Amino acid sequence: MHLLVCRNRLARRVLALTDRLTNNTKDWIRGYVHNSFCVHFRAKNTANPLQAFVRKNYSQMAGGRGLVFRQLFESESSTYTYLLADPETKEAVLIDPVLETMGRDLKLIHELGLNLKVAVNTHCHADHITSTGLMKKQIAGLKSAISKFSGATADILLSEGDDITFGKHCLTVRETPGHTDGCVTLVFDDESMAFTGDAVLIRGCGRTDFQQGCAKRLYESIHQKIFTLPDHCLIYPAHDYLGQTVSTVGEERKYNPRLTKSLEEFVNIMKNLNLPKPSKIDIAVPANIVCGLHQV
Amino acid sequence: MHLLVCRNRLARRVLALTDRLTNNTKDWIRGYVHNSFCVHFRAKNTANPLQAFVRKNYSQMAGGRGLVFRQLFESESSTYTYLLADPETKEAVLIDPVLETMGRDLKLIHELGLNLKVAVNTHCHADHITSTGLMKKQIAGLKSAISKFSGATADILLSEGDDITFGKHCLTVRETPGHTDGCVTLVFDDESMAFTGDAVLIRGCGRTDFQQGCAKRLYESIHQKIFTLPDHCLIYPAHDYLGQTVSTVGEERKYNPRLTKSLEEFVNIMKNLNLPKPSKIDIAVPANIVCGLHQV
Repeated sequence: MHLLVCRNRLARRVLALTDRLTNNTKDWIRGYVHNSFCVHFRAKNTANPLQAFVRKNYSQMAGGRGLVFRQLFESESSTYTYLLADPETKEAVLIDPVLETMGRDLKLIHELGLNLKVAVNTHCHADHITSTGLMKKQIAGLKSAISKFSGATADILLSEGDDITFGKHCLTVRETPGHTDGCVTLVFDDESMAFTGDAVLIRGCGRTDFQQGCAKRLYESIHQKIFTLPDHCLIYPAHDYLGQTVSTVGEERKYNPRLTKSLEEFVNIMKNLNLPKPSKIDIAVPANIVCGLHQV
Repeated sequence: MHLLVCRNRLARRVLALTDRLTNNTKDWIRGYVHNSFCVHFRAKNTANPLQAFVRKNYSQMAGGRGLVFRQLFESESSTYTYLLADPETKEAVLIDPVLETMGRDLKLIHELGLNLKVAVNTHCHADHITSTGLMKKQIAGLKSAISKFSGATADILLSEGDDITFGKHCLTVRETPGHTDGCVTLVFDDESMAFTGDAVLIRGCGRTDFQQGCAKRLYESIHQKIFTLPDHCLIYPAHDYLGQTVSTVGEERKYNPRLTKSLEEFVNIMKNLNLPKPSKIDIAVPANIVCGLHQV
């Protein structure tokens, strides 16, 4: 249960689901069957088994017993950091933490009583410096993780299919290069959420004009590795510049103005974006190659 | 099912839960019981009833079949707008929409194929102009809603205990005055989420030094109407200035630096904040009194 990167997924899932079943579901089902499919309604907050079950599962996604989940924003680089934790074991993972908001994130992790096991970067960022390296100095046992194709140093170098586990949950690595060589998308265990880094953004995508960028590779990565997820799968990107917080695979497949085009048209769009060079690239990339610790 | 404000809550909840039971749960339970408590694991995306059930409920919170939910941000006033919809009936409610982001919000509502029934303001805002009035001109049948104690005009004047229904869901009004006389908190039907406006903010609260503000009233409102919700209930505020998106009742009860104090200490803290006057108050309040349409 404490293996951080685990390729033997099936056994772990059996354990995790059996655990959920044992603790939660069986008791409820016994109660439900006992009631012979007849639902009794009582006042709020009473012990109606159906009501309690529905409520519990409703709140799993973002704050209940199944998963602690927080989306956090750093306004200078418009970066989203994500905190995920198993509320029972308290094991946590942090995705794309930013140097400027490290204090906020550490305070939250402390207040929630979490044990941060892994800080993972979806790629070697060019627009901000990661707080991963400094966090490692503050949290004993914290491991850094990044794609083995990123060119950056880290405790864990990730490959396609690797699982980053925390308690009964895991994030599975899908390699989605194109914005950089070492971009990954992290897919939550039940495929209800994908953290897409700078591959898919909401109604957009990462640029492909620096750091090994390749529009063709990005297009193929997204269509093969992200758009093959279920339509309802939530997309949580590394950035948003319009105040949007989440999308879905179905929505982006249907409405993304770049990714709904043919490969040829997409490559042409990306070639003609004429974006300015990221203002922080010359300090961010050298720093992020060494977990954010260069000249910090 | 189409009554927008409904005080006869029990009958509607029976209908809604019976509907969920009929469509989703019974089939699964029959399958589950048929399998005699023996779970068979297959590859991803196959029809294992437990796996499918867990996945469906997992994704209900923020994008699956049970509820469409979007948190949206307006960066000038740091305001959160919330979109909630029933994915089956497509009926939707928008909370605290902002004039500057009306185009973004209308586009999203259109793309998601939603039928926006109600645009509700948690109070008469002083820091931004609502888009409610202009939206009504763009969406046929859209109703505006605000507390009857706000002093503002709207199609629906809300009171304690009113339900704003959309499809099988509803938001229940709890009056939480103190920041203004007409502040309400909107509680989602299963008490898994509360939209607290400017009453509780994440590790903070609304100011009480203008617009009928009263620190004692705010403290009592929060302790009696919000902190009595379940600990796991997610708190979605009208604003955040530090990139935080959500908290919980349990967290704020434990860590809110103002609300963990005694009433006397709280009143003293609020008296000595010495905040500058909101820069937009002289244009925002007169506009919001008439649904945002004054001099727009």
